Amino acid sequence: MTATIRILGVDPGLRHTGWGVVEQTGARLAHVAHGVISVDPGLEMAARLAGIFTAITEIARLHAPHAAGIEETLVNANPRSALKLGQARGAAMAALSLASLPVAEFAPRKIKLSVVGTGTADKTQVMFMVKRLLPRAGEMKEDAADALACAICAAHHLPLEMKRGAA
Amino acid sequence: MTATIRILGVDPGLRHTGWGVVEQTGARLAHVAHGVISVDPGLEMAARLAGIFTAITEIARLHAPHAAGIEETLVNANPRSALKLGQARGAAMAALSLASLPVAEFAPRKIKLSVVGTGTADKTQVMFMVKRLLPRAGEMKEDAADALACAICAAHHLPLEMKRGAA
Repeated sequence: MTATIRILGVDPGLRHTGWGVVEQTGARLAHVAHGVISVDPGLEMAARLAGIFTAITEIARLHAPHAAGIEETLVNANPRSALKLGQARGAAMAALSLASLPVAEFAPRKIKLSVVGTGTADKTQVMFMVKRLLPRAGEMKEDAADALACAICAAHHLPLEMKRGAA
Repeated sequence: MTATIRILGVDPGLRHTGWGVVEQTGARLAHVAHGVISVDPGLEMAARLAGIFTAITEIARLHAPHAAGIEETLVNANPRSALKLGQARGAAMAALSLASLPVAEFAPRKIKLSVVGTGTADKTQVMFMVKRLLPRAGEMKEDAADALACAICAAHHLPLEMKRGAA
């Protein structure tokens, strides 16, 4: 008997945080759910971060994944942008960990390689392949596609011990 | 009758997060508590952030402040450091907001001006003045002194509406 494991991918951002859940049974992948958490940019910073934290906590509760994957952030941005993006990531990662999920970080190149077959794919190619690999997913925004791509990458690469909760 | 308000200052860092609580009654300041949250650097990133979140949540529960102050981060660091520091800040700020605290951010220059009287004070001067302003605080580490300085600055600058919980 082959265990089915469920993985939550997250693509955090201060304004829009993409998320997607996939199920893996042996080599088969299936779409479970996806969406984008959008936080009111008019709120004070701490309230925006609390919004991300709360939404991730709720998604983890609702879909009960066994593990999570998150994109490692490219740090070619300026320090001010990096700090803000870091804050969104910090709120999201704390929520994932407090939902008892092991959280693996994947380089953007590794995610693209995993989904498209080349580490230099653009966002259009990523979404195209995410839709092919998960035909039941339907329409999605770019942030959700990136999150599903991260979940697919995690399904391929997470070490077995991180999936043991699925046995 | 003058209300007493209680303010939590936080100086977040991925390895060491300083915190300090002060009470303000009219123009009088009193020390309540301070400390440093140290997270095992051997843990995975998400678990470290969860550790910061949990500790801040517990400190807010224990000391029941009415508002929180946090130092705005200087972003002269490189993007990679800014991202990491941002993650720690994100976990801390989400916890403060979820503890129902209004969270004000203060520039380092403003904090120094508020505590030492000059925006260019060094860390030794900040600690010296924190100990003078809060003579009952006793010994403290640098991160805790920075957090208490932030709480003192918040006591001076928080708008009245952020303190209304103390009435």
